[in-house]
Formats: sequence, structure tokens, C-alpha cells
Amino acid sequence: MSTVGVNANASKWMQGDGKESDIVISSRIRLARNLAGYSFPHLLNHEQAMQVVEKVASVFANLPGEEGKEYDMLYMQYLPSLDRQVLVEKHLISPQLAEKEEGALLLSKGEDVAIMLNEEDHLRMQCLLPGLQLEVAWQKLNKIDDMLEEKLDIAFDNQFGYLTACPTNLGTGLRASVMLHLPALVFTKQADQLFSVVNKVGMTVRGLYGEGTKAGGNMFQLSNQVTLGLTEEEILSRLNKVVMQVIEQEKQARIWLQKENDKALADRIWRAYGILTNARSISSDEMMEKCSLIRLGMDLGILPNLNSAMLNRIMVGTQPAFVQKKSVKELDPQERDWQRAEMIRKQLRGEEL
Amino acid sequence: MSTVGVNANASKWMQGDGKESDIVISSRIRLARNLAGYSFPHLLNHEQAMQVVEKVASVFANLPGEEGKEYDMLYMQYLPSLDRQVLVEKHLISPQLAEKEEGALLLSKGEDVAIMLNEEDHLRMQCLLPGLQLEVAWQKLNKIDDMLEEKLDIAFDNQFGYLTACPTNLGTGLRASVMLHLPALVFTKQADQLFSVVNKVGMTVRGLYGEGTKAGGNMFQLSNQVTLGLTEEEILSRLNKVVMQVIEQEKQARIWLQKENDKALADRIWRAYGILTNARSISSDEMMEKCSLIRLGMDLGILPNLNSAMLNRIMVGTQPAFVQKKSVKELDPQERDWQRAEMIRKQLRGEEL
Repeated sequence: MSTVGVNANASKWMQGDGKESDIVISSRIRLARNLAGYSFPHLLNHEQAMQVVEKVASVFANLPGEEGKEYDMLYMQYLPSLDRQVLVEKHLISPQLAEKEEGALLLSKGEDVAIMLNEEDHLRMQCLLPGLQLEVAWQKLNKIDDMLEEKLDIAFDNQFGYLTACPTNLGTGLRASVMLHLPALVFTKQADQLFSVVNKVGMTVRGLYGEGTKAGGNMFQLSNQVTLGLTEEEILSRLNKVVMQVIEQEKQARIWLQKENDKALADRIWRAYGILTNARSISSDEMMEKCSLIRLGMDLGILPNLNSAMLNRIMVGTQPAFVQKKSVKELDPQERDWQRAEMIRKQLRGEEL
Repeated sequence: MSTVGVNANASKWMQGDGKESDIVISSRIRLARNLAGYSFPHLLNHEQAMQVVEKVASVFANLPGEEGKEYDMLYMQYLPSLDRQVLVEKHLISPQLAEKEEGALLLSKGEDVAIMLNEEDHLRMQCLLPGLQLEVAWQKLNKIDDMLEEKLDIAFDNQFGYLTACPTNLGTGLRASVMLHLPALVFTKQADQLFSVVNKVGMTVRGLYGEGTKAGGNMFQLSNQVTLGLTEEEILSRLNKVVMQVIEQEKQARIWLQKENDKALADRIWRAYGILTNARSISSDEMMEKCSLIRLGMDLGILPNLNSAMLNRIMVGTQPAFVQKKSVKELDPQERDWQRAEMIRKQLRGEEL
């Protein structure tokens, strides 16, 4: 059980395909649900919280046929801290869940569906896919949601819709988000202005690892703010529209960069490649920054022999916990930087990690 | 005639061999001589100056047998400005000579002997060899000096020795210098202190291109200050002793760096290599800085497949005038940086420049 979810290759969202995959890294749908008859997780005692976990777990354990084998159950209390951290780095659980003794995760084999139990709500279900495919992710999660509603008593109010621990999730309980790689908008200093416009139309922009994290590697999460008063389809269609506009702006910025600043841009990209293929010590932050440049170089045809699946493996697979996971002994931050540099070199030179 | 001296491969001193060649790039002996019966160059009119040139030139033109074919004569007034600049970059003439209409250069085929005419003195003769071989250079130049004294009336005073335009060159007229690569002393911040000690024992430290230039690429010229009151052998032996001490200190500093800071040093060296093999734009200064690190890496066995002859070709052959020389059209500084980056990449990847 302990190796489930901690292999850098396994996550579907990291395959690097899907629509608009040169700019959209991944699409995520998240539904917040709670069981009727139980307080929200922060008010449950240990026993009650574990009852919630077992109720949900038994539904998945008793799914018929292939579906019954599709999900693994991971209990936070039995998972080594390092493995929990790896799940965070893969965007499969939140840092908050990793710290909760009563927390648990139902994880599909392809890691595209991840259902957190006893996070802020009883269930936080996500479907995470590569590229821009919010609708596909939504359909997949909606089916699971329908199945759950058949077998469990889900807290629902005719006026407020799905009840959630935090009122910002009331209504559909749906959060849709896309991870965007926007280096050209950052380099041309248009990103901040664009994001303030995006905020005005009811969307939120966050860093790579969600709320309050910084935008490492020019990666930004764009998501809907409003969950109440709109249908799921309206939420997705609005987000999709805004994302398409951001993509268009990023594309324009890339064209401008190449036209105005061709050589300087190529120099910057090749230098990043030179550093990642040669350095003996690399911090996470520098890795993210250089990977962003290399991804841009790949998209622009400057580094044609690379692919985004490999870049995703580097970006996620050389985060601190992953690096530690690869080592037999405890690493200090400096040793992690050495190990990371070695892992990156091997990946970029086409050797096995 | 115009291509003489402007080929980056031709200079003997750039072959990278000779004693202590991991630290001593080259050894140089210079003799200042003047013809009796003529004022020093700054007081000569054009006609007189050209008489001096022709007198000396005819001696070399009339040398018997192979020796007679050994020297090429280059007149500054007929040499394109770019070619003169290339000669400066190869350490074959001074920037001052390049600007003098009456200046000329007698240059041996191997470019180890270069005799400037009408620089500060009528004759400034240098022998430049790779590695630490002051004595060999001195013997070679001394033979030429003896030959000249047979055929020309050289200004000499029984009290002051050889007469020179500047009194600091009186006496032997000899300046001996070595070009040292001292990265470890710079990185460990010992260089300045060492140089102030070196000054106190009658030696001068200068940058890569002589007086008033900065120490690009951690290269330093160490030379004798005193030319009067000591025999040539004493001057050489004193300089040699100081050089051996500096070499020893640099070696100790390299050992210390490797012991204390092994990974950080390797990281720095490999990053330099990564940049030089990938960047699309490199300034002269950055080239020198990175080449210094790569040279150190080569000396320490971190980059074993490189050799110092190639590094010398990059270090000299990608200086501004050399880069311009390779191009059919006039380059602005930015274009030179692009061209330089390309030349360096080709060299380091083992292709033809």
C-alpha cells in the first residue's frame, strides 16, 4: 500500500497531452460533499470521523466488477510523512489533509480521480486530467457523484444546494480549475494586469500548489470563485471562456517575444537547458524556473527533442519529498539539491531516473 | 601579408604545453633596445622613424638561409585596423603600437618572437612561449639580440646600460613576465593579499592585456619591476622564485577548495560548461570568466576531455576583433556576442571553428 501514489510516472495528468497542452498543463474538477447526519469534519471526534471514512470506503470497496478494483484506499495515519508529502507534490491531496490523523484518500489507479476524506468537507472529490478538458473531467466526476448519491445520504438543501463547511463552496460545491503555463505573459510583464481583470469576472488566480503558494515556474491555477447561483455547466463554460482568452494572450505574447527578442529568448532558453543538463546542485525554485524556460523552448520549437511528459516528471518528480523518496538515507536540503541535479540530468539525457 | 598573425591557431604560446602549464599560461621575455644616433620614437619625424624601421628590417631580410625566411614584416600603416586589433588580442603587439603610423612588427612564423618597431623604443623584442620557460625564452631572444648588436649600433651607456625612452627600462632593458591562471586564489580571496606581498619584492601584477587592464578570467601577469642593477640572470631567477611560490599557493588553494567545497566547486564548473556549450549570446567578459572555470575544471580532472590549447583558442580567438574577423559583415556588439557564442559552442563540441 505504501507505494501507491508515490510513483512519479503514474499520474494521468502528467502525460502532457490533452487540448491546448502547450499552455494548459492540467484541468481539475473538484466537488465538495458532506454526509447528512454528521457534523463537518472540524467538529467530529476521532470515532465519528472514522465512521465517515468507513462509510465512504465501503461504497467503493463494494463497486461491482472492474470498478471495484479501481480504487486504492490510503489512510493518512498509516502513511509515512514522506509519502504524504509526495501525494501533495503530485497535487493528489492538500497539505491540510496530509496533517490530519482521520484523513484518508481514495485514489484511482490512473490517479485521475482522488477523493479526500475528512479534509475541510467529508468528501473532496477531484478529477485531474492533462490539457484543457474540464468537460471530460466534470462528466467523469459527475458519474461518481451520482453513484455516491444513490448509496449515501448527501447533505443537500433546496435553497443552498450542497452544504459545505465553508460557505464559499455552497451550491454546486464545484471548483473547476486549470493549471496554466504562462511564461511569455510573465516575461512581458502582462501577467499581473491580466490577473486583475480575471479576478473581476469572478475567477481566482493562485500559485502552483494552490491557495497562498507562489507561482513557481510561471505556473498559475485559474479557478471559479462562485459556486452558488450558477449551474455546473455555466461554471465550466465561463471558466473555459476565460481560459481561452488567457491562452490567446499567452500565444500573442509568445509571438511578440519571438519577433522582438528572438535571440535573447533563445539564449535564455538554451542557458536554462545548459544549466539543467550540467549543474551539480539545483534548488526546487531554480528547477521550476529553468523547467519553465525549457517548456517554452519546447513549445516554440527551439528544443524540439523534449516532451512535456518528461518535463512534468522533472517538475513533480524532483520536488523535495520525491527526491528524499529516492534516497536510502535522510538528506539535508543541500544534499537534496545535489540529488535533484543528478535526477534532472539523467532525465534530460534520456536515462532512467 | 594581411593574414599573417591573424590566425588563432598559429601562436606557439597558445599550444598549452610547457612546464607548470596548469597554472602558467605563458612566459614572456621582452628587451627594449634603441639605435644610437636616433632620438627616441616620440621625438622622430615620419621620415626618421621609417629609416629606423628599414634599418632593422634589412638586417632580418638579409639573414642567411632558413633564418632569412623566418620573419614576416607587418607595417601598421598598411594593416587594416581589425588585423592590428587581432595582433593585440594575441599579445603580439601593444595597443599603443597598433595606433602608430610608423609602427611595424617583425613576426616569426611560430609567432614566438615578435619585434615591435617604433613603439616606446625603437625595438621592443619579445619571445612568448607556453608554460613556465623564462630561461628558454631568454636564450632565444638573447641570441637575436647578439645578432642585432653585431649589425646595428645599439644605444648603450657604461653606467646606465641599455638606454631606453623610459628610465624604468634602463639597464638590461629586460622585462620578464609570466601569465598565471589563479582562480583558486581569487575564489578564496587570497589574491589581493598575495599580490601586495609580490609588489614588495619588486614584482608587478597586471591584468590580461598588460598595464591598466583588468584581470579577466582570473589571469594575471607577473613581471619584474627593476631592470637596472641586476643581471639578466638575476632578474629571471628572482621572478622564477616568486612565480614558483605563487604556483604553490594556487595549488594549495585548489586542494583546499576541493576539500572544503567539492560539490559547490563542481557545480560552478559544470554550470560554466553548460552555459558555454549552450548559450546563444556571450560577452567577452563572461567568456573569460567561464573559460577560467572550465580551465580549472580541466586541471582538477572534473572536465577531463578538454585541453588547454582549445581553451586558449577560445580565450584569444573569441576576443572582439577575432570574432569580427570571422564575419563578412560589420557586427555590432550584440551580434558579436551571438557570433562568439556560436564559435565557442563549435569549439567545445569538437567541431571546426
